[in-house]
Amino acid sequence: MKHGANIYKYAECSPSEIIDFSSNINLYQPKNNITLTDEIIVKYADSSYKNLKKIISKSYHVKKSQIALYNGATSAIFDLFKSLNPKEVNLYAPLYGEYEKALSKDIDMIKIDRFNHLYHIPTFNSCVVFVNPSTPDAKYYNLKMLFKIWKKQNCTIILDESFLEFENLKSFRHEINNYDKLYIIQSFSKFYSCAGVRVGAIFSNKQNIKKLKQPIWNLSSFDVEFLIQRLKDKKFIKKSKKLHVKQKQELKKILEGSKLFSYIYSSDANFFLAKTANARGLFKHLLQHKILVRTCGSFDFLSDDYLRFAVKNKSAHKKLKKILKVYSE
Amino acid sequence: MKHGANIYKYAECSPSEIIDFSSNINLYQPKNNITLTDEIIVKYADSSYKNLKKIISKSYHVKKSQIALYNGATSAIFDLFKSLNPKEVNLYAPLYGEYEKALSKDIDMIKIDRFNHLYHIPTFNSCVVFVNPSTPDAKYYNLKMLFKIWKKQNCTIILDESFLEFENLKSFRHEINNYDKLYIIQSFSKFYSCAGVRVGAIFSNKQNIKKLKQPIWNLSSFDVEFLIQRLKDKKFIKKSKKLHVKQKQELKKILEGSKLFSYIYSSDANFFLAKTANARGLFKHLLQHKILVRTCGSFDFLSDDYLRFAVKNKSAHKKLKKILKVYSE
Repeated sequence: MKHGANIYKYAECSPSEIIDFSSNINLYQPKNNITLTDEIIVKYADSSYKNLKKIISKSYHVKKSQIALYNGATSAIFDLFKSLNPKEVNLYAPLYGEYEKALSKDIDMIKIDRFNHLYHIPTFNSCVVFVNPSTPDAKYYNLKMLFKIWKKQNCTIILDESFLEFENLKSFRHEINNYDKLYIIQSFSKFYSCAGVRVGAIFSNKQNIKKLKQPIWNLSSFDVEFLIQRLKDKKFIKKSKKLHVKQKQELKKILEGSKLFSYIYSSDANFFLAKTANARGLFKHLLQHKILVRTCGSFDFLSDDYLRFAVKNKSAHKKLKKILKVYSE
Repeated sequence: MKHGANIYKYAECSPSEIIDFSSNINLYQPKNNITLTDEIIVKYADSSYKNLKKIISKSYHVKKSQIALYNGATSAIFDLFKSLNPKEVNLYAPLYGEYEKALSKDIDMIKIDRFNHLYHIPTFNSCVVFVNPSTPDAKYYNLKMLFKIWKKQNCTIILDESFLEFENLKSFRHEINNYDKLYIIQSFSKFYSCAGVRVGAIFSNKQNIKKLKQPIWNLSSFDVEFLIQRLKDKKFIKKSKKLHVKQKQELKKILEGSKLFSYIYSSDANFFLAKTANARGLFKHLLQHKILVRTCGSFDFLSDDYLRFAVKNKSAHKKLKKILKVYSE
């Protein structure tokens, strides 16, 4: 399994019947009230996307000129590598699989095992990629020391903060004003509960953003309108975080209570990585009962013994608890 | 004016008050009945987009494996150049401005004046780009002879057929089965009346399509669903074409009747290029009356004396006729 959310591949029933613990999308999903007007469907959008940039600017405390918008964070990653064209890229692994896929063959790729060799010194002038909080283990790293190392090595730094907003964690976004070679990757799908809405961003200084040559009209007008409305929804963040805390605690208890896992990683995001003796067997058992979890064999420096569970709602947790119980009996 | 549809730049009133003759979108715009479900907003899509590819395959007579989907034809163009990385590109100009923008600085770009030097022989092994029907002059070229030249020169051929469907014109799509180095660019926004819906395609042989390394989930789920429904709408094509014929005739009469234009190009698409002594003055006059047309100064091999008018509905034409009359008096 190279990605979460692969229900279309695994489902033997209708995908909508599957409870999908493999995609780590915010579980708070309020109704939206978008009206499908001609402005959304028929007309060309304002290609500067200034209204969306304005609200992102306000929400993320960056200037409008420090934002580049893409059709999803993955598209941002692909385009950034094409634009930077680095000679050597250091991936702090395990990490989101598309980073490796985005690298062209003529780029030297080095994978740094962040579990065991976090403070490895990258080559001078190389590029480093760090996802914080990390995936699949949901660990938030204090990057102070690493940042010092990277800056001393004159590295181009790509920091992916797509899972930062679930908890009150410190962003490095403000550092784009201090370090010229810093790029922050931001997905909006995860926290804003909209994986079908393909908008992601790169935050960097104005000069760097200007250099990113993009096709005109690269965003769906519906997606733009949806994200504007969601970012303007003042209750969303508060309600999300409250629900997140409650449900995360519940999922943790269920996983611990099942006695099926020899180790459950402490989580700083909306998912848990858990080690179990027979991950493959458990995965299959859960799938038979229409529960999809994320296998982790495709992640570097992790054996096949891990599964990742996203925090879900009460009824999903209840079903998971029941099916885990059946397995352990 | 580098693009049509720039109402956000030119409008001194609300953009919705502007009658936009600058964007050449199909004037037939039926209501849609999309329900905004969790499948569209919250969940990750099937990243193979197989349902959309299936209906495109059926509509355009290409195999599913011969389709690469992008968030708009412009994104397809950018990605194709990045992937092909050609040494020399021959642009048959004038043409859609994003082709030039998409070329990196280390690519040799040659502009071929198709009005005067159509049968110029491109360098062996170079890349050629032809938009057919062309823009801004809406001419459909019989490419038989050019195709022979290109093949003899072993050229990589990029053919943009985004304006082909308004009239009963012959496509070169089937040639992807015969010539290895042919790529067809297909926009769906124009004919399917959905500029806000960002889906475009590259058609080529299976091997070429496989080589186009794309980010996962590069399409908006809403846009995918919209386009599936529209392509499945069996009445759409028939009603579109009927309305197109009628309205095109009407617009032609209005332009001719105004006596303001020294030359109106014969059109094989849904827009007209017209020459006038004072294009700048006429553009300003129309804009004062909330009518936006496309100035053509940004197009190669055309002077500032041209304006482009898209075919619109009855009431838009009526207003245009009236405002043109005021100008000529």
